[in-house]
Amino acid sequence: MDATIKKICAGDVRTASRLIRDIEDKLPDAKAKIKKLYAHTGKSFIIGITGAPGAGKSTLTDALITEFRKLNKTVGVLAVDPTSPFTGGAILGDRIRMQRHAEDPGVFVRSLATRGALGGLSQAVGNAIHVIEAMGKDIIIVETVGIGQQEIDIINHAHSVVVVLVPGMGDEIQTMKAGLMEIADVFVINKANRPGTGQLQTELASMLNLSSQTADDWKPPIVMVGDAFKSETFSENTAELTQKIKEHHAHLRQSGKLTERMHRKAMVEIKDALSACLMEPLMHSLITSGEMKKLSEKIKNRKSDPYTVAEEITQRFLRKES
Amino acid sequence: MDATIKKICAGDVRTASRLIRDIEDKLPDAKAKIKKLYAHTGKSFIIGITGAPGAGKSTLTDALITEFRKLNKTVGVLAVDPTSPFTGGAILGDRIRMQRHAEDPGVFVRSLATRGALGGLSQAVGNAIHVIEAMGKDIIIVETVGIGQQEIDIINHAHSVVVVLVPGMGDEIQTMKAGLMEIADVFVINKANRPGTGQLQTELASMLNLSSQTADDWKPPIVMVGDAFKSETFSENTAELTQKIKEHHAHLRQSGKLTERMHRKAMVEIKDALSACLMEPLMHSLITSGEMKKLSEKIKNRKSDPYTVAEEITQRFLRKES
Repeated sequence: MDATIKKICAGDVRTASRLIRDIEDKLPDAKAKIKKLYAHTGKSFIIGITGAPGAGKSTLTDALITEFRKLNKTVGVLAVDPTSPFTGGAILGDRIRMQRHAEDPGVFVRSLATRGALGGLSQAVGNAIHVIEAMGKDIIIVETVGIGQQEIDIINHAHSVVVVLVPGMGDEIQTMKAGLMEIADVFVINKANRPGTGQLQTELASMLNLSSQTADDWKPPIVMVGDAFKSETFSENTAELTQKIKEHHAHLRQSGKLTERMHRKAMVEIKDALSACLMEPLMHSLITSGEMKKLSEKIKNRKSDPYTVAEEITQRFLRKES
Repeated sequence: MDATIKKICAGDVRTASRLIRDIEDKLPDAKAKIKKLYAHTGKSFIIGITGAPGAGKSTLTDALITEFRKLNKTVGVLAVDPTSPFTGGAILGDRIRMQRHAEDPGVFVRSLATRGALGGLSQAVGNAIHVIEAMGKDIIIVETVGIGQQEIDIINHAHSVVVVLVPGMGDEIQTMKAGLMEIADVFVINKANRPGTGQLQTELASMLNLSSQTADDWKPPIVMVGDAFKSETFSENTAELTQKIKEHHAHLRQSGKLTERMHRKAMVEIKDALSACLMEPLMHSLITSGEMKKLSEKIKNRKSDPYTVAEEITQRFLRKES
C-alpha cells in the first residue's frame, strides 16, 4: 500500500490534513491519492448540518461530538461553512469552546475553504469526506451554510440531513419551503426559548403535514433546542437530537433507502469527476492555444454566440458514438 | 427574422417573459431562440446587486429604477434572489411597493427561480439577461443574494457590482473580505441610521485602504443609505448611489476595462455552454443505456472509483487530439 494511504488508514492526523489541503488546492496528485484511497471508504455514517448564518450550527455540531463520544463513536467534522468557528469565521468565544475536543484523539476536525473551488466545491467536499472515512471515523458531520443549489449538491454527500432554523425567520421559511422539504431529515428549532418559537414550530409542523407522504415514509421530526448558554435543557435537547439522527439512520437501513442514497451519491460523484475530466483538458487546450481569446472576441463582437461556438468545439472533440 | 425574435426586439413583454420562462425550464427550443437573439444583445449596461437576505436589495433596486427613469433610461430587472419581493419572497408591504413601476412601459421586471436549475443557474441568468438586452433596455439590474461561489458566477454577467451591507453584521464582513474585495465596485451601507453603522463604515474603509491598488485603479466608494421608511435623506442617498454607478461605468469605458469585462463575460458564457453541450448528451446516453446504474453500483461497492470511471468514459468519447 502507498505510504500516504497507509498512514491515513492508520488515522494519522497530519497526513490526512495535508491531503485535504491538497484537495482544496486542486493539486493533481490529490486525485491519484483519492483513487488509491477509495477502496477504504464508504463505512462512515455521514450527517449534514445546514442552516442560515448565525443559526447555531457549530454549537450543535459541538454538542453532537460530545453525544457521539459518549456512545464511544469516533467523530470527524468537515466545516464547509464560511461563518463556522471551525473555519475561523466566528467570534472568539465560539472558537475557544471548540477547543475542548482538540485533545481527544477520537475527534478529527477540518475545515474546507469555500472560495477558489470554482465549480468543484461539491467534488472537494466529497473527497475530503473520503479522507475522513479512510481514517476510520464512525461518524462524519459536514457543516454547511444555507440551502441554495450549491448547498444541496454538498448535502447530497450526507446520509442524514439536519436543518437548523431559529425563531424570527418566519418569512424566509415560506420562500425556502420546497428546498427544506427536499433535503431535511431532521429539523432543529434552535434557540427555542426566544420569541417567535411557537409560530415557527406551527408553520413548520403544518408544512410537514401538508406534504404528501405514504405511511411508511420518514416524517422529519422537529427537535426543540434551547439557547446553549441560557437553557438548562440544552444537553437533554441535544441528546434527543442525537437519538432522532440515530432513528433516521435505522430507518434508512431498514427501508433499503440507504442503498438508494448511496447510489445517488455514487452518481453525483461520477458526474462531478466526469465534468472535471472532460472540461479541464479542453479548457486548458483552448486557453493555451490562444483559441479561447479568439472565440471570446467573436462572441463579444456578436459574430457568433456561445452555443454555436460550444457546438463546434464539441463536434471536434467528441466522438460521434456518444 | 424569426417572429419571436422580432417581437422581443420590439419590446413585447409577453413574448420576452415566455422565453425567460422557457430558459428557466430548460426547454430545448430556448437554446435555438437565444442563438438567433444573440446578435441583438450586448448593448445594455448591466448592474449586479448582491448582499445578505434582509439587506434591503429590493428596496434599493426599486429606488434605482426611479432614478434611472428620471434620467429617461429604460430599465430591466432580473431578480435571482429567492428572498426578493420580485420573486415573491417578501412580505406584502414590499410587494405592493414594487407595483408602482408595474404600469410603466419603460420598466420590465422578471424573476428567475433559483431552484431546479442544477448547475446551470449562471447560464440561465446570462440568457435571461440576453432576452432583456434584446428588448432594448438601457439598464439591466440583476438582483442576487449572498456572495458564495454561485453568486460570483452570476455576478460575472454584470458590468458594475453593488454590494449591500447593513450594520450589525460585523463578524460576517471579516469572513467575506476576500469575496467582497473581488466583486464589489460600489459598496452600500444600507439602513445607515441603525446602531453599528460607524463601526461597519470604519471596518470597510480600512479594508479598502489595505488592498493593494495602483493610482489609476477604481477605488470602490461607500455610499451610506438611510432606512427607506424612516430616513428623510433616502432619495438623496439613492441619487448618490446612481451617480457612483454612473461614474464606475465611465471609468470602465475610459480605462478599457469594459472590454476586459466583456471578454471575461464571453469566456464564462462559452465555458457554461461547452459544459452543457458536453455533459448533457453524455449523461443522457449513460443513463438511458443503463450504464450509469452499473457504474454507480461498482462505485458503491468500491470495485472502482469515480475518477477511474470518468477517465474510462472520457477515453471512449473524447478524441485524442484534445
